[in-house]
Amino acid sequence: MMRTRPLKVALLGCGNVGSEVARIMTTHADDLAARIGAPLELAGVAVRRPSRVREGVDPALITTDATALVKRGDIDVVVEVIGGIEPARTLIATAFEHGASVVSANKALIAQDGPALHAAAGRQGRDLYYEAAVAGAIPLLRPLRESLAGDHVNRVVGIVNGTTNFILDKMDTTGAGYQEALDEATALGYAEADPTADVEGFDAAAKAAILAGIAFHTRVRLDDVYREGMTEVTAADFASAREMACTIKLLAICERAADGGSVTARVHPAMIPRSHPLASVREAYNAVFVESEAAGQLMFYGPGAGGAPTASAVLGDLVAVCRNRLGEATGPGESAYSMLPVSPMGDVVTRYHISLDVADKPGVLAQVATVFAEHGVSIDTVRQQSRQDEGDRACQASLVVVTHRASDAALTGTVEALRTLDTVRGVASMMRVEGE
Amino acid sequence: MMRTRPLKVALLGCGNVGSEVARIMTTHADDLAARIGAPLELAGVAVRRPSRVREGVDPALITTDATALVKRGDIDVVVEVIGGIEPARTLIATAFEHGASVVSANKALIAQDGPALHAAAGRQGRDLYYEAAVAGAIPLLRPLRESLAGDHVNRVVGIVNGTTNFILDKMDTTGAGYQEALDEATALGYAEADPTADVEGFDAAAKAAILAGIAFHTRVRLDDVYREGMTEVTAADFASAREMACTIKLLAICERAADGGSVTARVHPAMIPRSHPLASVREAYNAVFVESEAAGQLMFYGPGAGGAPTASAVLGDLVAVCRNRLGEATGPGESAYSMLPVSPMGDVVTRYHISLDVADKPGVLAQVATVFAEHGVSIDTVRQQSRQDEGDRACQASLVVVTHRASDAALTGTVEALRTLDTVRGVASMMRVEGE
Repeated sequence: MMRTRPLKVALLGCGNVGSEVARIMTTHADDLAARIGAPLELAGVAVRRPSRVREGVDPALITTDATALVKRGDIDVVVEVIGGIEPARTLIATAFEHGASVVSANKALIAQDGPALHAAAGRQGRDLYYEAAVAGAIPLLRPLRESLAGDHVNRVVGIVNGTTNFILDKMDTTGAGYQEALDEATALGYAEADPTADVEGFDAAAKAAILAGIAFHTRVRLDDVYREGMTEVTAADFASAREMACTIKLLAICERAADGGSVTARVHPAMIPRSHPLASVREAYNAVFVESEAAGQLMFYGPGAGGAPTASAVLGDLVAVCRNRLGEATGPGESAYSMLPVSPMGDVVTRYHISLDVADKPGVLAQVATVFAEHGVSIDTVRQQSRQDEGDRACQASLVVVTHRASDAALTGTVEALRTLDTVRGVASMMRVEGE
Repeated sequence: MMRTRPLKVALLGCGNVGSEVARIMTTHADDLAARIGAPLELAGVAVRRPSRVREGVDPALITTDATALVKRGDIDVVVEVIGGIEPARTLIATAFEHGASVVSANKALIAQDGPALHAAAGRQGRDLYYEAAVAGAIPLLRPLRESLAGDHVNRVVGIVNGTTNFILDKMDTTGAGYQEALDEATALGYAEADPTADVEGFDAAAKAAILAGIAFHTRVRLDDVYREGMTEVTAADFASAREMACTIKLLAICERAADGGSVTARVHPAMIPRSHPLASVREAYNAVFVESEAAGQLMFYGPGAGGAPTASAVLGDLVAVCRNRLGEATGPGESAYSMLPVSPMGDVVTRYHISLDVADKPGVLAQVATVFAEHGVSIDTVRQQSRQDEGDRACQASLVVVTHRASDAALTGTVEALRTLDTVRGVASMMRVEGE
């Protein structure tokens, strides 16, 4: 049964993602209408630079006045693909006030202001959907929010940033250093001119906050997410990883504590075994591993960015929101009833791989082992290797220690204490080991 | 805002899956109530053998009269985990007539009678959900139906039967033959005493029909699915696969024809490259690969069977259906507006790996190549190997041909014609090659 009055869609932003959304709305108009039960009408497209040619978008729809567009009053759904905090936040709030539902791809905004925006949507009986904000085209938020609504999620571990995965994959497969791999990523368009948001983990941290909130039905603010970038990962780290049959990935890890009373969320580079499903995620692909009580281990894999893949997620949300409007219903809103506290990084239980430059003389290993013992950190393996550096008068050795599981605070304390030992010339590297 | 009147759930079947559903409804009652917005009440459990002890299920709820249970009139949701066509079909129809929504895990029934059951649900304004019917715990139908609702799916390729994947994985990793691997699967509980439904591909075919219907918004009947079991896969086939850097999987493949005007659905063993994401799916795990126009390549991975994983999918549906009831809404029903014809297997375009026993004399390859050419099948590679079988007077050779893509009809015709050649002693094996 097809309704003939179209549902009106306002598009905010017409870059890579927005232009794909507009294109698919035109080329697949019949399919979308059949799936929704009413045709869609692109009612307006707000852009910053109206002079830029946008193939396939009727020039009469282009406006620079986004505020006027969302205030028109006849808009059923606002699709926000501008990104950033402002003006996106104000525009979305205004859209709700004027009766529209909202589909957004804005991870930074949702991570920062999700609760307030959900509340605004709820007050008006409207929907706020944002599948595209995390892991691009991969259906992830809807499965977590709906498919696993009867399950108890204990852990979400994901590669949620394609730029950094591309760089780390290059370093792994070619032996390149960080800068060389970054240069290649930039040349190929996988990294932006200023790659800070990606390589310092800000992008992944926003996604971790969103994932943890949905997975654990609790509020996780961006500030709650421990964040460590991957700019200091070296070719030597990859060599160490290889010796352990591991590779290195930048992971977003959201965990429920063993006692169930708190959660943690963190982003950092980590060694994972090559046999782990996430280890084989190549190039700029994303993948997210979910562990839940009843379902066990699930993995979701696909392209995490790009115009068309992100548009796929946006349009899936658009269809859902439009169906809801026609049925005068709303989809699931924010679910934060668990109200679990978010523990600091020090409480996280993990393993460390530590590489030390030490003096090559008797008793060093005993000294080092004592420091670990004093901090309650149990050693899994230790490997000692003599070497005579050029131009170095003293004999040196390297000592590679892999620990058993311990609190991050204990591990950090151990490393700090090791640095104070006379026989320890330096801590060459330390990296967490995950996925076992 | 919590409603205090509970939503009443009738459970039909209390085996592996049903008992887990009942258990989780009790142990996670508070979580489920918070996520739904109202508490759940297990109103009755219909079983065949009431004497069997069911831990954690109140004996007062047990009944053998499933019909009376679904006719009570106060049941909000019926959860059907009996399996098989009857009495499940009649019970579900009766449930709709009496105002209940239905969550089912019954692949055979949905594949056979999905359209009629959807219509019955629609007449009453009720929901029919069945995420658990395909690939167990893996969120798959909801992502296909909702997350990809704005996209255009071109192909779904999946390992959707855990028993056969376990057997094939064993054959691959240990070199075992089919019977030996089946015996191990049976001993470990991965295969049933009568494994026919699994090893002959009936189970996977039902899932393929459901997947194709949802992916292509069209009706695909069980009879439309080409089906070939995996009982004739040999250790020699695995050896051949290995030489091509392939492994062998039982695949369910649903494809849209290149011109978009028809679809196909099929289940058969196939060689796939070891580099393909599906190649690394081990033991009894399931995984489904989805290719769509905008999203590109997605993969969903997880446990495809088992009591708790299947219960996870059932409970996710239960939460969704209950939310719909509270909101006086219904979820998306059947979407078959595309009404695409389903083409026969002969129209499928694929590749073949053919192993021939031939006479070792000049001119054989020319003869064989001519047969391929006459059927319009182009050869990719050919490998010839002389051998002197014990006790065999004539010199023999084996000829392994891998074709380029051609219609299955042309490939089948080629093999039939090869069998008639004097110089071809036999067709040792033929297998489709997928995933490139």
